[in-house]
Amino acid sequence: MKLNNLNDLLIHELKDIYSAEHQITKALPKMMKAASSDKLRAAFQEHLQVTEQQIKRLDKVFDIMGKKAEAEHCKAMEGIIKEADSMMSERADASVMDAALIASAQRVEHYEIAAYGTVCTYAKQLNMSDVLDLLVTTLEEEKATDQKLTSIAEGSINLKAEH
Amino acid sequence: MKLNNLNDLLIHELKDIYSAEHQITKALPKMMKAASSDKLRAAFQEHLQVTEQQIKRLDKVFDIMGKKAEAEHCKAMEGIIKEADSMMSERADASVMDAALIASAQRVEHYEIAAYGTVCTYAKQLNMSDVLDLLVTTLEEEKATDQKLTSIAEGSINLKAEH
Repeated sequence: MKLNNLNDLLIHELKDIYSAEHQITKALPKMMKAASSDKLRAAFQEHLQVTEQQIKRLDKVFDIMGKKAEAEHCKAMEGIIKEADSMMSERADASVMDAALIASAQRVEHYEIAAYGTVCTYAKQLNMSDVLDLLVTTLEEEKATDQKLTSIAEGSINLKAEH
Repeated sequence: MKLNNLNDLLIHELKDIYSAEHQITKALPKMMKAASSDKLRAAFQEHLQVTEQQIKRLDKVFDIMGKKAEAEHCKAMEGIIKEADSMMSERADASVMDAALIASAQRVEHYEIAAYGTVCTYAKQLNMSDVLDLLVTTLEEEKATDQKLTSIAEGSINLKAEH
């Protein structure tokens, strides 16, 4: 199907994000298992619940646009998660692994910040205020998660990993 | 090799970024060819030059740390570029393709913002001020590129792609 206009591209991007979110729900439990810090494990657990809500929000977006909610496999998220898997298979001290897990998770978050930032811009351009409200809510959540991970890293884990 | 401390992890992450930057220098010329907007093509051209400088800056970082500059294949950037390649193979109106190229490029930028953000945090924790200065310079360039792409999208391309 040819992409004729910004609306077509918005749907294309939403299918990519829908795939990315589903991939994240499968990756997070593995990252929880690999984490040693209780605080980090709790942050991943919380982000899993947030991600499930974000998927429901995407269902609503597809519904508003009169489209079936469907995923188009996101190769980028596949690569980001493959890299996280490689990291988890490395031998590392517990606190170093925690720092590495945060580094992986922040790459995931930044992919989502870029992707949701893009679709927010399209929805705004297309005057789709209901869609925009839903997507902005998720974008803000992703930014908050990224900041939370930074504060966990800087507040304790990187210090423990130093020596 | 076991990752025993934050210094080991910093080197590990730098090798990942070194690979990512080299992959980007190969992807940008393809994105330039696929772009129709002169402004966008010029932005990609400029970013290619900036990326080459960033690689030289990484060479300096490895040198300061007494390590050989080497890449460890970045699977995440491979995935992000694979997705950009898929997008470039789609049939799309010229302005819609330009918007899609910006979306792909911003995913690349955000990967780098996350990755350089991480290594800056480690260098700061390890009191490596010379390394930190070099990495912060690049981090700020990546953020500026991301903002420039947003302003090109919002200033002209998304409007052209609307209908």
